[in-house]
Order: sequence, then C-alpha cells, then structure tokens
Amino acid sequence: MNESIIGIDLGGTRLRVARVDRDMNIINRKEILTRAEQGPDSTIERMIELIREMLPTEPNSIVSGIGISAPGPSNPNTGVVVAPPNLPGWHNVPIVQILQKEFGFSTFLGNDANVAVLAEIARGAARGYRHVVFITISTGIGGGVVSDGRLLLGKDGLGAEVGHIQMLVEGDHVSSLEREAAGPALARRAVAALEAGQTSLMREMVNGDLERLSGSVVGQAAVQGDPLAVAIVERAGRILGLGIVSLLHLFNPEIIVLGGGVSNVGDLMFNPMREAIHKYSLDSSYWENLQIRPAELGENVSLVGAAALVVTKGGMEDVAAVAHKLGRE
Amino acid sequence: MNESIIGIDLGGTRLRVARVDRDMNIINRKEILTRAEQGPDSTIERMIELIREMLPTEPNSIVSGIGISAPGPSNPNTGVVVAPPNLPGWHNVPIVQILQKEFGFSTFLGNDANVAVLAEIARGAARGYRHVVFITISTGIGGGVVSDGRLLLGKDGLGAEVGHIQMLVEGDHVSSLEREAAGPALARRAVAALEAGQTSLMREMVNGDLERLSGSVVGQAAVQGDPLAVAIVERAGRILGLGIVSLLHLFNPEIIVLGGGVSNVGDLMFNPMREAIHKYSLDSSYWENLQIRPAELGENVSLVGAAALVVTKGGMEDVAAVAHKLGRE
Repeated sequence: MNESIIGIDLGGTRLRVARVDRDMNIINRKEILTRAEQGPDSTIERMIELIREMLPTEPNSIVSGIGISAPGPSNPNTGVVVAPPNLPGWHNVPIVQILQKEFGFSTFLGNDANVAVLAEIARGAARGYRHVVFITISTGIGGGVVSDGRLLLGKDGLGAEVGHIQMLVEGDHVSSLEREAAGPALARRAVAALEAGQTSLMREMVNGDLERLSGSVVGQAAVQGDPLAVAIVERAGRILGLGIVSLLHLFNPEIIVLGGGVSNVGDLMFNPMREAIHKYSLDSSYWENLQIRPAELGENVSLVGAAALVVTKGGMEDVAAVAHKLGRE
Repeated sequence: MNESIIGIDLGGTRLRVARVDRDMNIINRKEILTRAEQGPDSTIERMIELIREMLPTEPNSIVSGIGISAPGPSNPNTGVVVAPPNLPGWHNVPIVQILQKEFGFSTFLGNDANVAVLAEIARGAARGYRHVVFITISTGIGGGVVSDGRLLLGKDGLGAEVGHIQMLVEGDHVSSLEREAAGPALARRAVAALEAGQTSLMREMVNGDLERLSGSVVGQAAVQGDPLAVAIVERAGRILGLGIVSLLHLFNPEIIVLGGGVSNVGDLMFNPMREAIHKYSLDSSYWENLQIRPAELGENVSLVGAAALVVTKGGMEDVAAVAHKLGRE
C-alpha cells in the first residue's frame, strides 16, 4: 500500500497544496494566489480543485488524511478558521468539515506557527527533540510549543502565542514582546528617533521618506554599523532574550528554534539576547544545555507541518510518530 | 485488595507523612518538625520511621507507591531534590532512590506547586478540568500547569515557574512577576513610600518599625481603606493580571486557581487583575469562559498532591486517572 498525505498551506497571499509521502517528502506541489478579498467560497472551490489534481492515481495508493495550515486564530478542536486578520472575509469557516464532506479523509487544522514546530521536529532544526519552543519573528511574533512530545494547544487551540507575553509596564503604558521586538517595533523606534532629529544612515536609505522605514531597513543599517540602528536592534535582542527567559521558566525546553525575517539580523540581535538569557535566568540549568538554532525549513515549512499534523492526529499524538518516519529514511 | 498510597510533604518547617486511599482521602497523618538545619540524613531517617509507622497492617493491604512533594528546584525525572533555598543542606539528594531502596515501592517526586495543581484537580477547585493553571502568591510566586490532562514539567521538571515571567518596569529596569506582585514587593513599595514621608495607617500598624512591615500588613491596611495600601495592592493586582494575560496566551487554560496568602486580600486585588485581563487579551475568547477560583485545599494540599503524583505516575499520565476516582465517590 502506497500511503500519502495532502498538505495545505493557506496563506494570506498564496494557497499551496502538496502531496507528501509518509517520510514527509514533498512528491508534488501546486500553488495559486489566495485572492482572499474574493471571499472564502471562491478560495475553497479552488482549494478543492487543487486537492483533486493532487490525489494519487496509481493503484494501491491511499491518502491517509488532509492537513491544513492556516493563519491564527484558527481552532484545531472544531476545525474552524476563526478570523485571521490576513484572510479578510474568513469568519468562522468550518474548513475541516467542508473538506471532510468533499473527500471523506481525516482532516486536521492547525495554526501556521503550531504547524511549523511539528515541521521543524520532523525535518528541520529540532529533529529528535521532545521539548521544543519555536518562535517566529517578522511583522509579528508567533510561536509553537511541543511539550514532552505533544503540541501544546490549550482549551481552544489558542495557546503558544508567545508574542503576547506582557513585558513592559511604564506607569499606565503596557506593551508585549511582539510590540517591543517584532519588525514594526524596530521601525517605530527608528522613525521616532529620526523625527527627533537624530542622524543615521537610515534617513538616506529611505531617501528621507520615513514611511518607507521598515524593520528590514533597520536591520540592514545595523549590519552596516549605523549606531542608532545598532542600538535599536540590541534593545530588541535584549527584550527577545527576556521573553525567552519567561519561556524557559514556563516550558523548560531542550531547544529554541528561531524563524522569521528579523532573526536574519544575526548576532547583532542574538548576542544581547543570549546575554539576557544568562543574566536573568533563575539558574544556569535553564540554559546550560539549551540549544538555540535558526529554523531550517524554508517556504515548505507549512506544507511539511500540515502533513505532520495528519501523522500526529492534529498534534494530539506524540511527535515520535513523525520522528519515527525519520528513523526509516 | 485494599490499596493505599503514602504521601509525603517535605516542607522547610514541617515534614508530614500520610496514608491516603485511592479516592484521595487521608486515612492517617503524622507530622514532625523538619529541622532542615540538621541536614538531610537526619530528616530522611525520621521520614523513613514515619513511613514505616504509616504502613498498613491489615491483611490484603498493599501500598501502590510513595509520592513526595518537595520545594523546588527538585527534578521529578531523576528523583533528586536539587537545592531548595528553604531546605539548607539539601543539595542533590536522590530521595526517590533512597526511599525506593528502603521500601521497594514505586516512588515519585514533584515540586510543591506542581503537586498542588494535581491536588486541586483531584479534590479541589479544578475538579474535572483538563487545562489548568495554578498560581500561588505568598513570599514568592509559584505555579503548576496541567495541559490537556498532563502535568507540564519540561526537560528537567523545571517548567511552570510562573513567578519568573520577565517584565520591564519603569524604563529599562528588569523585574519579574514575582518581584512585582508577591508579598515582599508589596512591603518594599510601602516602606519606600513611608520613608519618603507619605502618611499611612501602616506606620501605626507597625509602631513606626518599618522592618515589621510585611505584605500581610499592606493587605490589612488596604482592607481598612488606607489609600497608600490600596494603591499598592491595586498595582500588584494589575501586574498579576498582566502575568495572567501572558499565561492565558501561552496555555489557553479553562481555569486559573489562585492560592497563597496574598490572594486573601480579595477583590481589592482581583478587580484590577480582572480589568487587566479583559483589557490586554488579544481576544475575549481567552477569558470569556475562563474560570478564576481560589484554591480549595488547605494545609493538606501537598499530601493529596503527593498521592495524586503516584496515581498519575509522576504527572506523566493523564489526570483522568485521578478524576476517575472522583467519579467513584
């Protein structure tokens, strides 16, 4: 019997559908624009077409299930895409029920960051680990946690929102890890400093148009040694480190996997991050044998993760089910 | 066959040993002073004597195991009490191995706060729940987390240290939930204000001796309406609320159980806490159906929790094993 899995990556921009074998290798893959503005009905129609094109035609071939990676908030227990900001028009769409009715396969839904931690355990930086925290830092900060081999979901699958750790209390001003360390936070601080008249490379990099100043511009300027940009990146690294200290004391993981664009800045950000981890942990046992590694899977992370979602029955079963596949490679 | 469990509560002040039935009822209980300053050997000797006195003598009686609640850091995987601040002289004591060798029963070790969450699920405020965060607030802030029915321990059992969530306060000063909201934080802020000349009931309550000003004095003064004490308690409640926001977004629990002396202050602290939870959560789904309840078990919490540790095999098995017992009551 030739078993394969359908993995779906439903993103704000692109919709990808793949057929994945039991060893998490992508056999076939198709991609179209999501066109979220046309509403869920049209996207789901094209998703169903793509799945149909992807089904195996060989004799003795079976599909063991469909896994869907979707932006949060999505509820893995009910199989409903709740209301992702980057999928306008998608409100309480019962995608699992729809696909199950259409194809009859077991179908599982997961948030993109939750699915990514499964993918990194199956084929990426966290292979073989059972206590894993995945953090993705770009325009926001998302996360996925595997604790003792199982995906941490919480009551409605709303857990592992690491960007929403509350961090800053200045009088009445409260802020979160995401609002202090993601890309827009870097840009916001740079713009404020430039508006206050500070000199910086960044002013020339955007030709004086501060609206074009993004987190990535701050990162590039920091790499070139611009003092203002360096200071901003270092502060974000320190705050990221404090966020990680909280995560270490809550989840006591073996490995932290860092993904997303902001982590490309490298040691400029990671050195103050490591310093904060060492300085503010209760005890060195929290970080002594801790691995901190960049994510290894690129654009296929969600497809692999969606397939891993099927193998682990929505993350409810032990990741050993995915790791076992590796043993057979 | 008449099955019972030995539960041990190893505290900094008192050592309690009990025999507990399969329904988590305490059948017999003895208590002595720990006398930690005499070192672990003497305490363990008396612990073994107490266990021996506690063993069932009836025919057809068996002991299914020994559970030990100890202060953190203690490693449930290795069965070693690592180095609890309030057990001086206890450094890497392999208590599980010692008792197993002595009695031959399966033996399990857990941190007091981790064990408490099992106890509250078995017999207390969290009966029947599968996603539970327990927070105890006194001179420190400790925690225990059960996620989808299993105790969250992490790689070395060092997880669920909720008091160590990092916060940046007033500029770039790094602090933690514990350092801002536990008893000593309340006292520290009160002393600072009194030293700066503020008027307050609290000055009379301690007869001008500010060293006697504890968190409990601040709580009493707040209940009597002292404006300074009220402001301090409200700030602590708000910060506790922010810590809970972080925990809701990480664990997405069904219920939060609050224990410890500081929580006795009641609504003066809980109202600003609830306000912060509502104001700073990403979405109302994090708190809409959330239960927030005071802990129900008193001084027996650790004994019941130690017994629950045996039934759940150190928290590695589903809490349904303990909840099931309730069904039979």
